[in-house]
Amino acid sequence: MHAYRSHTCAELTKSNVGETVRLSGWVNRIRDHGGVLFIDLRDHYGMTQVLCDPDSAVFSQVEKVRSEWCIRIDGEVKARDESLINPRITTGEIEVYIRDIEVLGASAELPLIVFGDQEYPEETRLRYRYLDLRREAMQRNMTLRSDVVASFRRRMWDKNFREFQTPIITASSPEGARDFLVPSRLHPGKFYALPQAPQQFKQLIMMSGFDKYFQIAPCFRDEDPRADRSPTDFYQLDMEMSFVTQQDIFDTISPVIAGVFEEHGQGAKVDDPASWPQIPYKEAALKYGTDKPDLRNPIEMQDVSEHFRGSGFAIFAKLLEQDGTEIRAIPAPTGGSRKFCDRMNSFAQKEGLPGMGYIFWRDQGEGMEAAGPLAKNIGPERTEAIREQLGLGVGDAAFFLGGKPSAFERVAGKARDVIGEELNLTEQNRFAFAWIVDFPIYEKDEENGAIDFEHNPFSMPQGGMEALEGDPLAVKGYQYDLACNGYEIVSGAIRNHKPEIMFKAFELAGYDEAEVRKRFGALVNAFQYGAPPHGGCAAGIDRIVMLLAGTSNIREVIMFPMNQRAEDLMMNAPSEPTSDQLMELGLRVIPQE
Amino acid sequence: MHAYRSHTCAELTKSNVGETVRLSGWVNRIRDHGGVLFIDLRDHYGMTQVLCDPDSAVFSQVEKVRSEWCIRIDGEVKARDESLINPRITTGEIEVYIRDIEVLGASAELPLIVFGDQEYPEETRLRYRYLDLRREAMQRNMTLRSDVVASFRRRMWDKNFREFQTPIITASSPEGARDFLVPSRLHPGKFYALPQAPQQFKQLIMMSGFDKYFQIAPCFRDEDPRADRSPTDFYQLDMEMSFVTQQDIFDTISPVIAGVFEEHGQGAKVDDPASWPQIPYKEAALKYGTDKPDLRNPIEMQDVSEHFRGSGFAIFAKLLEQDGTEIRAIPAPTGGSRKFCDRMNSFAQKEGLPGMGYIFWRDQGEGMEAAGPLAKNIGPERTEAIREQLGLGVGDAAFFLGGKPSAFERVAGKARDVIGEELNLTEQNRFAFAWIVDFPIYEKDEENGAIDFEHNPFSMPQGGMEALEGDPLAVKGYQYDLACNGYEIVSGAIRNHKPEIMFKAFELAGYDEAEVRKRFGALVNAFQYGAPPHGGCAAGIDRIVMLLAGTSNIREVIMFPMNQRAEDLMMNAPSEPTSDQLMELGLRVIPQE
Repeated sequence: MHAYRSHTCAELTKSNVGETVRLSGWVNRIRDHGGVLFIDLRDHYGMTQVLCDPDSAVFSQVEKVRSEWCIRIDGEVKARDESLINPRITTGEIEVYIRDIEVLGASAELPLIVFGDQEYPEETRLRYRYLDLRREAMQRNMTLRSDVVASFRRRMWDKNFREFQTPIITASSPEGARDFLVPSRLHPGKFYALPQAPQQFKQLIMMSGFDKYFQIAPCFRDEDPRADRSPTDFYQLDMEMSFVTQQDIFDTISPVIAGVFEEHGQGAKVDDPASWPQIPYKEAALKYGTDKPDLRNPIEMQDVSEHFRGSGFAIFAKLLEQDGTEIRAIPAPTGGSRKFCDRMNSFAQKEGLPGMGYIFWRDQGEGMEAAGPLAKNIGPERTEAIREQLGLGVGDAAFFLGGKPSAFERVAGKARDVIGEELNLTEQNRFAFAWIVDFPIYEKDEENGAIDFEHNPFSMPQGGMEALEGDPLAVKGYQYDLACNGYEIVSGAIRNHKPEIMFKAFELAGYDEAEVRKRFGALVNAFQYGAPPHGGCAAGIDRIVMLLAGTSNIREVIMFPMNQRAEDLMMNAPSEPTSDQLMELGLRVIPQE
Repeated sequence: MHAYRSHTCAELTKSNVGETVRLSGWVNRIRDHGGVLFIDLRDHYGMTQVLCDPDSAVFSQVEKVRSEWCIRIDGEVKARDESLINPRITTGEIEVYIRDIEVLGASAELPLIVFGDQEYPEETRLRYRYLDLRREAMQRNMTLRSDVVASFRRRMWDKNFREFQTPIITASSPEGARDFLVPSRLHPGKFYALPQAPQQFKQLIMMSGFDKYFQIAPCFRDEDPRADRSPTDFYQLDMEMSFVTQQDIFDTISPVIAGVFEEHGQGAKVDDPASWPQIPYKEAALKYGTDKPDLRNPIEMQDVSEHFRGSGFAIFAKLLEQDGTEIRAIPAPTGGSRKFCDRMNSFAQKEGLPGMGYIFWRDQGEGMEAAGPLAKNIGPERTEAIREQLGLGVGDAAFFLGGKPSAFERVAGKARDVIGEELNLTEQNRFAFAWIVDFPIYEKDEENGAIDFEHNPFSMPQGGMEALEGDPLAVKGYQYDLACNGYEIVSGAIRNHKPEIMFKAFELAGYDEAEVRKRFGALVNAFQYGAPPHGGCAAGIDRIVMLLAGTSNIREVIMFPMNQRAEDLMMNAPSEPTSDQLMELGLRVIPQE
């Protein structure tokens, strides 16, 4: 017989009754039922009930074991009494009578109980991660993550993509976030950097003629702590293709994403990729108040400025006299009660706005009546026109926000979420997707009026060189995001592969040619030698696994995460270097005050 | 029609004749045949001949293009004359008459010609890697690497392993090589390190109950330059299993390795894993002079000390009076000529030995005769005994080395290689494998007599605690390597999962418990809480791809490698940090003298 096991702890069924078997695993729980010891023996695959009665030759040894001891037992498989069958586990029909036992690894007193759902402070969980990971939910999450990554790989291979690894020790890249630096020992005073993303490398791979690239790529950013992101690194499904248009990228990656969600979404409905809308950035901002809308929520906001211009509601009427202002309505079907409307008004106040005007429609027995202070101020005609535009009726409500959209859009988007949730309008058990397109290439700094890149300086402007000769703020890029249930899960672009357009695009953002050559030397050089048109995208693996696992804490889907202070409590990182290490690197630590 | 292509450059055949098609790619070569311009248009997939005659409306545009311009052409597919068919390319039956052309990316003058096999200095190739990678051999090598990695993944999945990513920004590990450090901004004066290997993490994954782990893992070591290794990082297929014996590891990984070699070995013979020998370390040293023998070479060395003890060959006879000395013979079938023997003797001298004694057997018409000075010195009886032991005959030779094996073993191994090559004994087109087992756990420092770990402090000693109570130098470990054609391609061990045996093992090497807890805190802590028996191995991806690609330069199988001074000439890494970066990290660079 094998030294440790003849079967896993998930394998034995009625068909094994009478066999002598060997099992290894951890003591999940041990119970004493009238002198007979029952052990739930657990391994990665499942659980088997093993037991020992006082007559057994090894009873005294079995008596000593405790939770989380790792043991090997030999025993005889017996059928359980009909009444004792446990249908929730695969081995629920049998139990194993222990004939021999070996303690493979005893355990000290546990800082964290593995069975059950007892909650522990995150510091405890991270310090004893090897115990935390034995818990059922963590076994499930890590398995899910591994299976999602494998599924992405299989699907990309099936589409004739090849995975190429790009350097992890490389050059500092001026892409926005903060680099992690790595001092060079062979070149004292010089530093490498860990890549914020393989952006430049994947474009260089296209320059190198490889046509279709992907990588499950680690990306490193020295970020300030935030609950929903890792302070050090994250993983992307990074991909790039040559000789493609934006639509080609959508046609390629959409079925990959949909396939993974169908495979691992536990039966939730996944919108058919053929029906995923392509929503221009501006339209998304208007309708959903965000560029990552949750389309499970059917509410679409509308511009209702015309109904308030010159109306008796002085606040809005006055607002509209200023340039760039709008009044927008959030329709709230079934939200037509004063109680609900007041609650939403308080929500807006908590979010820092003066409040949200509202109208709701009710039937007081004499036909439909529009209620609320706002309706009174603008009069029945305008109120009715609004109702018709929004397509609302008795029992519904609408909320109104006014001013410069940039000042209220975020709260409007949040209000839409809350209304959808509270009124049960937001569908459950569904993954709803939308491509957001036509992002502006540039944005204006509100403070100093300077023009800078809105997103990614590598994107191709729609209209090419010609477009760059007009108003920069009107230039849209071939740049896109994929939103799912309110999260951005993919981001990408068709790249600017023409050196002259690239230099012009940078010039508009205030970078001269010398600066561009300095910052993006490798790419700019490569573009001189027959650059192919190309584009791609990157999907956030951690975010996707979080969505599929139904958690909003990124540390639930990473095997050995840092805590929020960017420390690894288990491994004791970061730590003080030795003076030899510093000397070899030619570095001195500046004493902190 | 698609904006860039209706077909790839490898797709068109006779069946497309008459169609109007669109192709995109690079101008591999352009030739002028009596006014007609012929372009070999190349993409990742293949090559298509496109042409333009002077009557064409776009002739003047086609005339301008040069090698490595990226172009799009529209044209009509025509069959080639029977006599002009090129059977070496998939599109050799057709050519495309250009009707329209668009320059997608023009090219400046090329620092490196893509077509053909012209050689360039490595610095040029690395600086213009995107051009170098367009070359046929590099496209093939990178494709091979990607396919090998994919094949490993598929095979591991098929064996129910899951891939888990382990941290890249982590703690300094005292495993032998030099760490790359990463200064922490949030904890000034403290440093992370890049992992030398996921060794501790994979063991922690076993502690966490995951049973079967693998990872295609980047490993980081700050190494001094050497031709056949990357100075910064390399990739491993890293794997680990719980509840296993050494034989389980072999049974699991052998077919994976063999499968990859069969799939990508271009028809070379791959030894059946069931027949891979398990050779004890000591035996390998004796027979092959190395722990990574090339078994394509049938030569096995033998201990022939007995024949020289007290013989007339004074040098050897005297040598043997010293403790720990031996005389070993390298049989050289078909090597029986004075010329060959003298050449091998010079080889040994070049390698720093005084020389290699030899005997060769010839037939001077009067039956077999043993020739060479050595045979004369020891006389016919001993000479004949040696011949019989080695199983040699007329036309064969044997070489002899004497002394302490540690002093001549390396040269003996090399001599065996050279003899095998020169005499054509070493089989070609074959991948020959052998597991080397029973490595010693400890070695003695020749200078100070101190006992230290020979290899890996985490391995389980054979015989457990009991074995550690005897002579440390006699203790073998459950530790193994896989050799292929003279290279070590896999290394692994059954781990020491028992804290008490671990502390004892470290004590013998001079580390007290406090020191072990300090260096390997995470592992030692984890072992307290029910550690399962476990083991695994790691296979060198770069080395395996090198073997399959038939190259001995690691930079031929890495997309964007560092040069041997650990610089990336294309990306300009490493480089000087900004003073802001240094300030944020709380570091000062010590000026170099």
